Amino acid sequence: MLNSQGVDTISSIISPEGSLEVLSQHEVNRLHRTSKSGLHDLLRRCSLAVLNCGNPTDDSLAILETYKDFDIEVLQQDRGIRLKITNAPAEAFVDGRMIRGIREHLSAVIRDIVYVYNEIQHHKRFDLSTAEGTTNAVFHILRKAGTLKPGRDPRLVVCWGGHSISREEYEYTKDVGYHLGLRDLDICTGCGPGAMKGPMKGANIAHAKQRRRDGRYLGVSEPGIIAAEAPNPIVNELVVMPDIEKRLEAFVRLGHGIIVFPGGVGTAEEILYLLGILLHPDNHEMQLPLIFTGPKNSEEYFHRIDEFLVYTLGEKVRKHYTIIIGDPTQVARLMRKGIDGVTDFRRTHQDAFYYNWRLTIARDFQSPFEPTHMAMETLALHRNQPTHELAANLRRAFSGIVAGNVKEQGIRAIDKYGPFKLTAEPELMQRLDVLLSSFVIQGRMKLAGQDYVPCYILN
Amino acid sequence: MLNSQGVDTISSIISPEGSLEVLSQHEVNRLHRTSKSGLHDLLRRCSLAVLNCGNPTDDSLAILETYKDFDIEVLQQDRGIRLKITNAPAEAFVDGRMIRGIREHLSAVIRDIVYVYNEIQHHKRFDLSTAEGTTNAVFHILRKAGTLKPGRDPRLVVCWGGHSISREEYEYTKDVGYHLGLRDLDICTGCGPGAMKGPMKGANIAHAKQRRRDGRYLGVSEPGIIAAEAPNPIVNELVVMPDIEKRLEAFVRLGHGIIVFPGGVGTAEEILYLLGILLHPDNHEMQLPLIFTGPKNSEEYFHRIDEFLVYTLGEKVRKHYTIIIGDPTQVARLMRKGIDGVTDFRRTHQDAFYYNWRLTIARDFQSPFEPTHMAMETLALHRNQPTHELAANLRRAFSGIVAGNVKEQGIRAIDKYGPFKLTAEPELMQRLDVLLSSFVIQGRMKLAGQDYVPCYILN
Amino acid sequence: MLNSQGVDTISSIISPEGSLEVLSQHEVNRLHRTSKSGLHDLLRRCSLAVLNCGNPTDDSLAILETYKDFDIEVLQQDRGIRLKITNAPAEAFVDGRMIRGIREHLSAVIRDIVYVYNEIQHHKRFDLSTAEGTTNAVFHILRKAGTLKPGRDPRLVVCWGGHSISREEYEYTKDVGYHLGLRDLDICTGCGPGAMKGPMKGANIAHAKQRRRDGRYLGVSEPGIIAAEAPNPIVNELVVMPDIEKRLEAFVRLGHGIIVFPGGVGTAEEILYLLGILLHPDNHEMQLPLIFTGPKNSEEYFHRIDEFLVYTLGEKVRKHYTIIIGDPTQVARLMRKGIDGVTDFRRTHQDAFYYNWRLTIARDFQSPFEPTHMAMETLALHRNQPTHELAANLRRAFSGIVAGNVKEQGIRAIDKYGPFKLTAEPELMQRLDVLLSSFVIQGRMKLAGQDYVPCYILN
Amino acid sequence: MLNSQGVDTISSIISPEGSLEVLSQHEVNRLHRTSKSGLHDLLRRCSLAVLNCGNPTDDSLAILETYKDFDIEVLQQDRGIRLKITNAPAEAFVDGRMIRGIREHLSAVIRDIVYVYNEIQHHKRFDLSTAEGTTNAVFHILRKAGTLKPGRDPRLVVCWGGHSISREEYEYTKDVGYHLGLRDLDICTGCGPGAMKGPMKGANIAHAKQRRRDGRYLGVSEPGIIAAEAPNPIVNELVVMPDIEKRLEAFVRLGHGIIVFPGGVGTAEEILYLLGILLHPDNHEMQLPLIFTGPKNSEEYFHRIDEFLVYTLGEKVRKHYTIIIGDPTQVARLMRKGIDGVTDFRRTHQDAFYYNWRLTIARDFQSPFEPTHMAMETLALHRNQPTHELAANLRRAFSGIVAGNVKEQGIRAIDKYGPFKLTAEPELMQRLDVLLSSFVIQGRMKLAGQDYVPCYILN
Repeated sequence: MLNSQGVDTISSIISPEGSLEVLSQHEVNRLHRTSKSGLHDLLRRCSLAVLNCGNPTDDSLAILETYKDFDIEVLQQDRGIRLKITNAPAEAFVDGRMIRGIREHLSAVIRDIVYVYNEIQHHKRFDLSTAEGTTNAVFHILRKAGTLKPGRDPRLVVCWGGHSISREEYEYTKDVGYHLGLRDLDICTGCGPGAMKGPMKGANIAHAKQRRRDGRYLGVSEPGIIAAEAPNPIVNELVVMPDIEKRLEAFVRLGHGIIVFPGGVGTAEEILYLLGILLHPDNHEMQLPLIFTGPKNSEEYFHRIDEFLVYTLGEKVRKHYTIIIGDPTQVARLMRKGIDGVTDFRRTHQDAFYYNWRLTIARDFQSPFEPTHMAMETLALHRNQPTHELAANLRRAFSGIVAGNVKEQGIRAIDKYGPFKLTAEPELMQRLDVLLSSFVIQGRMKLAGQDYVPCYILN
Repeated sequence: MLNSQGVDTISSIISPEGSLEVLSQHEVNRLHRTSKSGLHDLLRRCSLAVLNCGNPTDDSLAILETYKDFDIEVLQQDRGIRLKITNAPAEAFVDGRMIRGIREHLSAVIRDIVYVYNEIQHHKRFDLSTAEGTTNAVFHILRKAGTLKPGRDPRLVVCWGGHSISREEYEYTKDVGYHLGLRDLDICTGCGPGAMKGPMKGANIAHAKQRRRDGRYLGVSEPGIIAAEAPNPIVNELVVMPDIEKRLEAFVRLGHGIIVFPGGVGTAEEILYLLGILLHPDNHEMQLPLIFTGPKNSEEYFHRIDEFLVYTLGEKVRKHYTIIIGDPTQVARLMRKGIDGVTDFRRTHQDAFYYNWRLTIARDFQSPFEPTHMAMETLALHRNQPTHELAANLRRAFSGIVAGNVKEQGIRAIDKYGPFKLTAEPELMQRLDVLLSSFVIQGRMKLAGQDYVPCYILN
Repeated sequence: MLNSQGVDTISSIISPEGSLEVLSQHEVNRLHRTSKSGLHDLLRRCSLAVLNCGNPTDDSLAILETYKDFDIEVLQQDRGIRLKITNAPAEAFVDGRMIRGIREHLSAVIRDIVYVYNEIQHHKRFDLSTAEGTTNAVFHILRKAGTLKPGRDPRLVVCWGGHSISREEYEYTKDVGYHLGLRDLDICTGCGPGAMKGPMKGANIAHAKQRRRDGRYLGVSEPGIIAAEAPNPIVNELVVMPDIEKRLEAFVRLGHGIIVFPGGVGTAEEILYLLGILLHPDNHEMQLPLIFTGPKNSEEYFHRIDEFLVYTLGEKVRKHYTIIIGDPTQVARLMRKGIDGVTDFRRTHQDAFYYNWRLTIARDFQSPFEPTHMAMETLALHRNQPTHELAANLRRAFSGIVAGNVKEQGIRAIDKYGPFKLTAEPELMQRLDVLLSSFVIQGRMKLAGQDYVPCYILN
Repeated sequence: MLNSQGVDTISSIISPEGSLEVLSQHEVNRLHRTSKSGLHDLLRRCSLAVLNCGNPTDDSLAILETYKDFDIEVLQQDRGIRLKITNAPAEAFVDGRMIRGIREHLSAVIRDIVYVYNEIQHHKRFDLSTAEGTTNAVFHILRKAGTLKPGRDPRLVVCWGGHSISREEYEYTKDVGYHLGLRDLDICTGCGPGAMKGPMKGANIAHAKQRRRDGRYLGVSEPGIIAAEAPNPIVNELVVMPDIEKRLEAFVRLGHGIIVFPGGVGTAEEILYLLGILLHPDNHEMQLPLIFTGPKNSEEYFHRIDEFLVYTLGEKVRKHYTIIIGDPTQVARLMRKGIDGVTDFRRTHQDAFYYNWRLTIARDFQSPFEPTHMAMETLALHRNQPTHELAANLRRAFSGIVAGNVKEQGIRAIDKYGPFKLTAEPELMQRLDVLLSSFVIQGRMKLAGQDYVPCYILN
């Protein structure tokens, strides 16, 4: 049925999958109530994002506009719940039946949003003002989602990088994923297109070649980003973390190694986050292989990142990563070797394979940062502070720009108040300018075909 | 190693199974702490019960005496927990390694006791003073134990009956289990020997013949009874409910049909419980096939039960059960047919297959009854009250006698204060006397070879 | 429906299982034709045997008499074949549907008889007059039956012993099976009751306790014996070898260790067969753990066997077996250890785990021996020949007595011509007499409750 | 290691997979011998083809030249066989271990070539001069390969089309495969790139989205074509039929529906083959959905094919196929519906789902055609013969051109004797010329980037 925007839609009532199958009557009631109350809008937006996975775009507002008469309702039935979907994108269905993978994603979205709301945010169980409480909450969300699997050897490689990358870079990420997959490694990304999709596609083909049937393609998202980076169909496990900080913590505690592909500010945010943590003295002995890689023509890109990191965090930062240009096989070999080291380390220390409890994450990196205009303007961006704090503040600055670029709330704020203002000490400001400008010029701020109007001003 | 009683024991450190594999550090700490605190004695006794499954006895005190230097400790390790077992019965091990099924039972015991303690009893989550809260708590314990499996057709037959029955009766329960198993039905009992073991053994052989590999042998126990009725090895799912009332509720909400074999007071308690519920007006339309059955020589037994029920609960009670003597095939056929009816009923009403939410259970049947001498003496046993309340009080009387016979606490109380005193109106008293005396004469109060000294006096 | 003998029977058309599912039209035709021709009687008798598994008896003729109007026909249908069963024992069915395990046994019987007939006996493919050709034929029959499974560690224990044993001995075989099963070992026997059923039952319980779901209970039968030793329901793989010699070869090439329980002449035949082979110089280094075991009261039995073996085959025979009395745990431990040795040996020599190609079997032990009165009378039973030949001749003598006891053809011959006459040198004759008489006295010649009339005379 | 042509190669000894795991010593010997004798060259060429799957090319001679020092040898070991690979393409390995899928393909190649040689060609078992014998042989090859799976609903779609197609066409085949996969359909093709790879890739993604883990990607090849059309990595079942005629028969008996994408002469050959069979009077009622489809710009292509078919085989031919342009969803829907019809038909007639026995194939379509210059020149290409025979002769003509284009033997013959000469009646000749020329112009004769020199002359 064509909706008011002339787009083909389907309405249907479906059964959920997985952990929503066995609920108590009380949980059903609560889910029903919750979904009609304050959470309804959040549920609606995230559900639309996963249902819209056939149409790549990173413009959250445009999606909401196109499907403004879309709705989702949790129905209560004696036997459990049903999901009533109204005016959903037709691509999510085949001959009237919702595609099973999308049905799983939809169930995951509901599970995580409701669980987080009821058990994490409105419950005294976890003290989110402490490091321990936060780490514990992240653990519970992941366990509830079935992400923590005992009895498996370490093999999860987190891949970061831009959602808006060139064809050549995309093919490169696929190639790296392929060579990782040939070596029995699994992929975890932040969902979405570009560097988040390529490695999964490559690994999927490689797993088929190696006849590995239980390959994991884990997507870790968050409500603010899921519309811009909808889970691609290959994702066979989806978790929606409540905010970007918990999402980042999930990545670093789940992953056994990390690969960074070329990207924009989001990628820079991730790099700052990770290096800020690895530089923490408590993590001195921690094993976590980290590789920056891209095709030949991205050499310059990583050169700049490297320079910026050395300038801001000091020469010592370099021992935490390896840069490899244009050699997917070498990337995969080094990662395999690094992960074998992680396995030995965890075995020696009797650490769990599925969650890195041992990693220390300072509170600066855990507390949610809300990128208001005020908060952005008052960030302390100078080198007259411990490396670790500077890394945290730079991470926040980048996080704010991501919000201004693609998150609904951020976009609305920029629309209303104009660009964010960032202030830094002169040389840092200049280097930041160079870095950000290069992202704009290289088209890394938005999906191809869209003009980029910066959401920030450097003072 | 021989322990102080000259019995062969083994000490070992083992890894738990199943739901104890992925725990947060906080949970590990709590488990460690809890297991050292007030719960320790409970944990110790229940663990000993499952470890002692090779030696059938219903004398809880004797077991504790024989293995008085047995201990269990939850060790905390970065990677999770380990269980340190000291001076355990050697039969639980093969060449130094604990038998896997027993390891699973042990893990189940710890899971349930700690879960109930932390999440049910010391948590505001469930209001155990209400019917809804109690039913919800029972649901959560069962779900946590993995007992509620969606996507399976109804096929769970609850079998009740005595743990102390004759060889002939035991063979009959095996035969019934065999014919149930041939018809793809699963078995749920209260663990232990006799009528709780026979049907499982029979069904196991039948499932092997029918090449059914996922047959369920579900044991539902409780801390007070587990020592006297240790889970037999065939049980492949074990749940320990916190008290007899929740255990009975678990039976009637999980089961799709119920078979009662000859038994003693425990069985009479179960019958009263079930009929008290089925007679509730709200359960008017409820489908729950119920069959009383035994070999030829138990005809008299069921005749007496039937008379007692009609006398106390009225003629209408008869429409809720069918008595079949000496015909296992007919029992199985009727049960299969009844369960097909349950399936249709639930499908029509969109009820869950795995938990009977629709069944109304009055508060009298849910509130835990503590059989003190005072409580027993003041039970209102007369027909000058609604049928339903009389059923509840008779159930309590029988429950108290079970405690006096085989539960540690009950035995100690009888040792200290002498037998319970029960008072009833004259005719009821006389009929009660006849019924109980017949149990004693038929040797249904204790395991064979033990003399029975009544733990009650009828005034 | 009651048949002409007043016994309950069922007629039905069923689909076969397993390897009979995908047949070419040519094979279907041939199967149809073959089953109507000369093989029909053989098929009919063997099919009846597996269908009759609920009624233990070793009287082949009586079964044929009771079900004389039983018939089986292979129907041809475009889509494959169906089996038309007329007047079959009702116990093979549940509410009109044949029990799946029995359906599998029935399909196995047809598969093996027709395969052997078409591919082995009426085909130039295998030269059965040579050792190589015979061993190859045995291999092909076993492979066709799906018995040779690559990728599994050695764990198959062949259990031999009488089908007619005392309750105490039966319980002992169950106990040994239980302790083998606890140690992850599988069981292979000749089907039937007694020592062939006990170890499987015990192992089945142990595998359930150890949560091992792919336990193998392999039955190796032959057309002459299957009626007297119908496969018990636990057998989940059944092979029907064409004659006793190929059946014995299947045992020794498949098994990784052998246990002998008390038995009668059939057991003596098996012992002679095995020791005759192990004494062959080519098998000098062969590893094949062999244990003779029984409960306390069978000590005398093994003492006599041992004496007889030493007398006939010399003192050196003793290094090939160990006698253990009344200690199931010790039997299982020793067998486990022995099989670990077999695993090492095969790994070192890169031998297959699933078929012992390396074992040399002399032609005397392979050529089918037809026990006519003439053949029996002319057996050379004296010590004036190589040990190895004497073993072969003694094996034949025992084989003939088994035929006279329980095989249809043998029984008919004895009925017609009177008992077999055996001639031996005096001392050997006397020792043979002692041995055989002890079997008679101990009731090891027939199932309990039947009088034994010897089918032989010692001259 | 660089080989003599400067290409990276690896030498290794590997274990085979699947049906080569359990072999008799006799089979091992024969395999060893066979592989060293006349079959060696065939084995070597086909093995090289599957090992070379990473390098798409259709130039068989060039591959053989590049890897002229490649060799494969079957080694005999007690425990079974090993494959000794010398100087194989390095892409088939990951860190020294052969990719598992390629190892399976290699094992399949050896299995089929040796099985066909020993059991089909050098054995009296199948009379290949009769229709029944040939159909039976095809059945046995497929069963041996594990291709005939009972108990599955019809869902295998055979996709035909060119290996040399445009990017747009390739994307279209992927899209069709995707929509087939969304509807739970499996793919069977002739292996190789282009229209043989696209549908598998598309279906693979769709199966992932629908969480279907047992999707089948069946490749049916033959020794002459395998080098030019090496099995792509997604193929998870590979069969090598002995010649093109048996390969075509395998397609039509295995497939439940057929889709034809744009292609060259090979595709034309397949179309003629199929329509020649469907026009046979015996196949009057046969259900076999057949769709010709391609993107918008291939409309002209199918228009021409359609015209040619109507001209040569008559207007009635049109009722056997549907042409759909530029609508993958519609193709998939129609195919799903058609296959549902096939399912009903087979169920009604109790036909096997896995092999279409009912289809009549005339001898002209079964007898191998060897395209010598003489045979090509004397083909009767005129309409003065039954439709059915003309179809057979046209099929042969196209088959010869395929050989001249890409098969090693054909290429060598053309090199030596010049192009094939074809003679036809004038109008037919002209239409043939138009058709073939259009293939050349559209670049459908060779892989992109290669100039095409026709291997035929039309007189």
